[in-house]
Amino acid sequence: MIREFHLACVVLLVACPAIASQPVIPVPAHVETRDGVLSIDSSFAVSIKGTCDHRLRVAVDRLTDRIQRETGIPFHGSGDRPPTLVVSCTDTGGTIPTPGDDESYTLDVSAGGALLQAPSSIGAVRGLETFWQLMQPGTSGVGVPALHIADSPRFPWRGLLIDVARHWIPPDVIKRNLDAMSTVKLNVLHFHLSEDQGFRVECKRFPKLHQLGSDGHYFTQDEIREIIRYAAERGIRVIPEFDMPGHTTSWFVGYPELASAPGPYAIERTWGVFDPTMDPTREETYEFLDGFIGEMARLFPDPYFHIGGDEVNGKQWDSSATIAAFKKQHGMSTNRDLQAYFNKRLEMILSRYGKRMIGWDEIFHPDLPTTIVIQSWRGPASLAEIARSGYRGILSNGYYLDHMMPASYHYAIDPRGGEAAALDSIQAQRILGGEACMWAEFVTAENVDSRIWPRAAAVAERLWSPASVRDSSDMYRRLDILSPRLEWVGVRERPNRTLMLERLTGYRDISPLQRMQEVLEPVKFYVRSHTGKYTSWTPLNRLVDATLPESREARRFGEAVDSLLADRGTVSVRRRIRERLIRWSAVDVQPLVAQSALLHEIDSLAVVFNGLAKTGLEALTAMEQKTVVTPEQRAGWLRILGAADRPYAELLITIAGPVRRLAEAALLR
Amino acid sequence: MIREFHLACVVLLVACPAIASQPVIPVPAHVETRDGVLSIDSSFAVSIKGTCDHRLRVAVDRLTDRIQRETGIPFHGSGDRPPTLVVSCTDTGGTIPTPGDDESYTLDVSAGGALLQAPSSIGAVRGLETFWQLMQPGTSGVGVPALHIADSPRFPWRGLLIDVARHWIPPDVIKRNLDAMSTVKLNVLHFHLSEDQGFRVECKRFPKLHQLGSDGHYFTQDEIREIIRYAAERGIRVIPEFDMPGHTTSWFVGYPELASAPGPYAIERTWGVFDPTMDPTREETYEFLDGFIGEMARLFPDPYFHIGGDEVNGKQWDSSATIAAFKKQHGMSTNRDLQAYFNKRLEMILSRYGKRMIGWDEIFHPDLPTTIVIQSWRGPASLAEIARSGYRGILSNGYYLDHMMPASYHYAIDPRGGEAAALDSIQAQRILGGEACMWAEFVTAENVDSRIWPRAAAVAERLWSPASVRDSSDMYRRLDILSPRLEWVGVRERPNRTLMLERLTGYRDISPLQRMQEVLEPVKFYVRSHTGKYTSWTPLNRLVDATLPESREARRFGEAVDSLLADRGTVSVRRRIRERLIRWSAVDVQPLVAQSALLHEIDSLAVVFNGLAKTGLEALTAMEQKTVVTPEQRAGWLRILGAADRPYAELLITIAGPVRRLAEAALLR
Repeated sequence: MIREFHLACVVLLVACPAIASQPVIPVPAHVETRDGVLSIDSSFAVSIKGTCDHRLRVAVDRLTDRIQRETGIPFHGSGDRPPTLVVSCTDTGGTIPTPGDDESYTLDVSAGGALLQAPSSIGAVRGLETFWQLMQPGTSGVGVPALHIADSPRFPWRGLLIDVARHWIPPDVIKRNLDAMSTVKLNVLHFHLSEDQGFRVECKRFPKLHQLGSDGHYFTQDEIREIIRYAAERGIRVIPEFDMPGHTTSWFVGYPELASAPGPYAIERTWGVFDPTMDPTREETYEFLDGFIGEMARLFPDPYFHIGGDEVNGKQWDSSATIAAFKKQHGMSTNRDLQAYFNKRLEMILSRYGKRMIGWDEIFHPDLPTTIVIQSWRGPASLAEIARSGYRGILSNGYYLDHMMPASYHYAIDPRGGEAAALDSIQAQRILGGEACMWAEFVTAENVDSRIWPRAAAVAERLWSPASVRDSSDMYRRLDILSPRLEWVGVRERPNRTLMLERLTGYRDISPLQRMQEVLEPVKFYVRSHTGKYTSWTPLNRLVDATLPESREARRFGEAVDSLLADRGTVSVRRRIRERLIRWSAVDVQPLVAQSALLHEIDSLAVVFNGLAKTGLEALTAMEQKTVVTPEQRAGWLRILGAADRPYAELLITIAGPVRRLAEAALLR
Repeated sequence: MIREFHLACVVLLVACPAIASQPVIPVPAHVETRDGVLSIDSSFAVSIKGTCDHRLRVAVDRLTDRIQRETGIPFHGSGDRPPTLVVSCTDTGGTIPTPGDDESYTLDVSAGGALLQAPSSIGAVRGLETFWQLMQPGTSGVGVPALHIADSPRFPWRGLLIDVARHWIPPDVIKRNLDAMSTVKLNVLHFHLSEDQGFRVECKRFPKLHQLGSDGHYFTQDEIREIIRYAAERGIRVIPEFDMPGHTTSWFVGYPELASAPGPYAIERTWGVFDPTMDPTREETYEFLDGFIGEMARLFPDPYFHIGGDEVNGKQWDSSATIAAFKKQHGMSTNRDLQAYFNKRLEMILSRYGKRMIGWDEIFHPDLPTTIVIQSWRGPASLAEIARSGYRGILSNGYYLDHMMPASYHYAIDPRGGEAAALDSIQAQRILGGEACMWAEFVTAENVDSRIWPRAAAVAERLWSPASVRDSSDMYRRLDILSPRLEWVGVRERPNRTLMLERLTGYRDISPLQRMQEVLEPVKFYVRSHTGKYTSWTPLNRLVDATLPESREARRFGEAVDSLLADRGTVSVRRRIRERLIRWSAVDVQPLVAQSALLHEIDSLAVVFNGLAKTGLEALTAMEQKTVVTPEQRAGWLRILGAADRPYAELLITIAGPVRRLAEAALLR
């Protein structure tokens, strides 16, 4: 024990990116710990030296407001205290963040004070978030450990895509997600604004787009401007995506003449890839798009404009005689060529308005200039090919938050990994970063926070921190520290979940349901889509919708079981496993199920869940007391483990794996 | 038991305002229960008949959205179902609600369907809230009991004052409070917009008002318009208050020439009544106010305009030679006369802009026309005199939510009670209603919801329901049903409290702290103000700020103890008392206290709290086992009870009373 303690101290003194005990997400590029602690007490004050712009001033206000509420230190009216934290900027940087912004900073903390230096106010914003995350409450108040940090991002493009088209996500939810993005140093909000199921921006030139294509749920241009302003204050770019030429049914409700087949069209209510596609052969299409893009280019200041370009199934094109004739006339053999023609025309329009094109894998075509950026949903092979061909790209494959995968899954995926690992350094530089994607078939404003956070923080770290930072258990340790703070910044994960559970139970005591829920997870990938049961009208108000994508309890329980089975289990590990299994086997949700029609569907789930916990307990007891497992017992175990192999009410019982391992160990002994 | 059950059924069938089992707050004027239940299932649909305006349409949308999320019933895309709930309006009512609006409605529910009829869309909005509150989840889904309701408010003026001047409360917090107000049928948002400590509205004509008087925290005129629109959709009037001629320090920062003594002035940071007062003798003051009121009269559409008028201490007037000369010249003997002169001038300006004056007790003066309305903070005697003199008034005395009194305290106060009970019927009609007041010395955007709700619902019921509805234990029963729903409507009481506690503990497990906190209450009335420790800069982030004004646990525990001591205690009551006392005596917050500087102040509190619980347990045991209390035990009990007589960290341990009663009973036996 004493040896371990000394070892820990030695590790702490070594300069390395992943200091084991530091709490910051993403891990800074370079950290050197020092002796001492800077105490954040009533003498604490912040001052700005050098250049100061609005962004920096409000960022300092945000920090002092947080510190004030965390510590009770009043920052006003206390005279001219000498500053404890000095923030020094050399340059202001633009009002609107741009792709080339310098986000670097250095932070020096000693017992006597702290100095944050950055070339731009955006770097200073990043450093202030680091400072806040470093603040740790302790016995004698709050302190920041003495250290030296020299930090800058590995990738310049670190985004979060929010699909506001498939389900409507209103401005206040976007804003609180921008606050959380800022906390983990994400710098691009990719706004997926149009889809078959909805067109979500006010368009003054073609008002039937939002009037007929949105069910009344769209951002006014004032709201867009406010979101852009809010994001810019946090050093976050806002990139609009208008998906074309497919995924455009909602456009055609008001403007059927844009489509490749005659209308009328209605807003799509189901999920999938649909036929309606713009007609790339008519000049009127480009006249419309010129007017539309001109208006949107003025609204969105970012140099990039996302045109989607994915999943064109070609059916409308194939069944149109005029389109077939057009292809023949222009010597195009495939729909891919036709789409490339469309994209080239789009690119010319975008250029005219000073915008660079970004789109999904499908837009990759040698006819397009290398100024475009390609966002890869297809994955490393596609991205590597893009980079080898002289194009720049970002990765989203593996970062789909709607797949409900654990943070560690996303964390393991590197934009320069897989096939991209073989790229030379110039090619590798063309991979600009990545974006976590929150597709919205199965999220609403009510539960979207719980689907994005905290998992997006793992992607944020992958994109900011050095490639060598890969220890997922340390990532989880820091994620556990970050999670309550994210909520405090504005993420409404837990409060909304509580309200959803109360609603499900008819406002009864939800604690039994919570004790079961803590080890449940929604089904993964596209399992829910493939049921075919869902439309955009289906209320997402079931237990699956109120259950976190990743169970922390299950992860910890699994780790404890693995440690036990590897003969590393201490007494406290054994005790913890037993205590958890007793807790779960004692959960009784049946009274709640009986009283709520919405919970009837979890009847069998609860039975299997209790059975699993009891099986685990029996197996643990058999192992510990070295008793023989009777054939009847064995049959019972296998029955319950078999039953736990499938989802119930679209929920997985995540302790099934560890319990199976316990049972197998007991049987094999 | 069977007899009691029959009795309950009989009671249920009697038509009376307070049906014991109905959950609605405020209790409708007239309820008749019928046989049967209307099932809210997948066949449920709403349709609007007769006149329909925007207000009604969005109110129906709000209801269907809530039902959709509560039940999972999709309301769209399900064909043309026959309507289950028909809403029928005879007239639309104005876009902006006005004081004379008819808010009545009738609601008839049978197993086959429901009919809501109202003369105006505002009445329909009220009825829809009743319908929602009647929806109760059950074994086979959600249902509404068959009944007939004929409902209308007792008072036309049912307000909530929110002081956004002493602490800044941003637009989104105002909006969620409007949602909660709508739920309990409050119909006036009284916006206290200016104070010594802040001027909170953008003023285009005199921009230094908000630029220099607000620390940057003010509503833009667009935000005000949005709040008015949001309120109007919910049938809620918005009345601005600009407090004059006192409480005006923040005005003078930019416009010192308005004051009765030369400047310069700075925004006031402490609490109390201050000297700076407008100069009522200069014509330039009225020219300024004419321009100012002209602008604000256009911004706020309500016919009433609140001019404050309270707490003019007269010091600046008394020390000004020119003001003394003016008084002499105009034959004014008192400052009250001078203020009446000021008010008369103000009233003329208001009239010119089509506004009627409302102000606090101090504006009451025979020189003013009887078209004014007087808001009484002084109380029943003042209000009765106002009404006898031919003026109209509303009550706020007794409804001050910042006093941290229990809901039952406010509930017992009737605007036509006290001295007003002696008024004749014409005089009594002049009492238009009342307003709950959320003064903001000790609230922030973070905890204001917890100070307003659910207690404001008790005031709402007092102002809406028949005077005969006075059973406070039934009010509490319904408040307990309403509270989670209020949160669901948007009130952020519990989530913000949880975050505040986590912050206090440094994100540790807060459950021990919560178990103690459940029987704590902040000190009452002006105890915190009188410490003199507070300024507007003091962070309100302590345990007292995160503790609810009224402890439900303490109320229930007190009731249980009283029932026990009155020899009505059943076995389950005894068991509950013991179980609670064991729970509280076992609470150990010391590890949290030791680790958090912000919790050091509750060290003694925790000791006394544990000691009280142990005293209660010993007393209970002595009573039950009929043992003799030793002198040492007795001395220990008295010591702890003595220590519990005062607040710790501005918190009261509310179980002190019931424990004292237990101990006395054990000692007297």
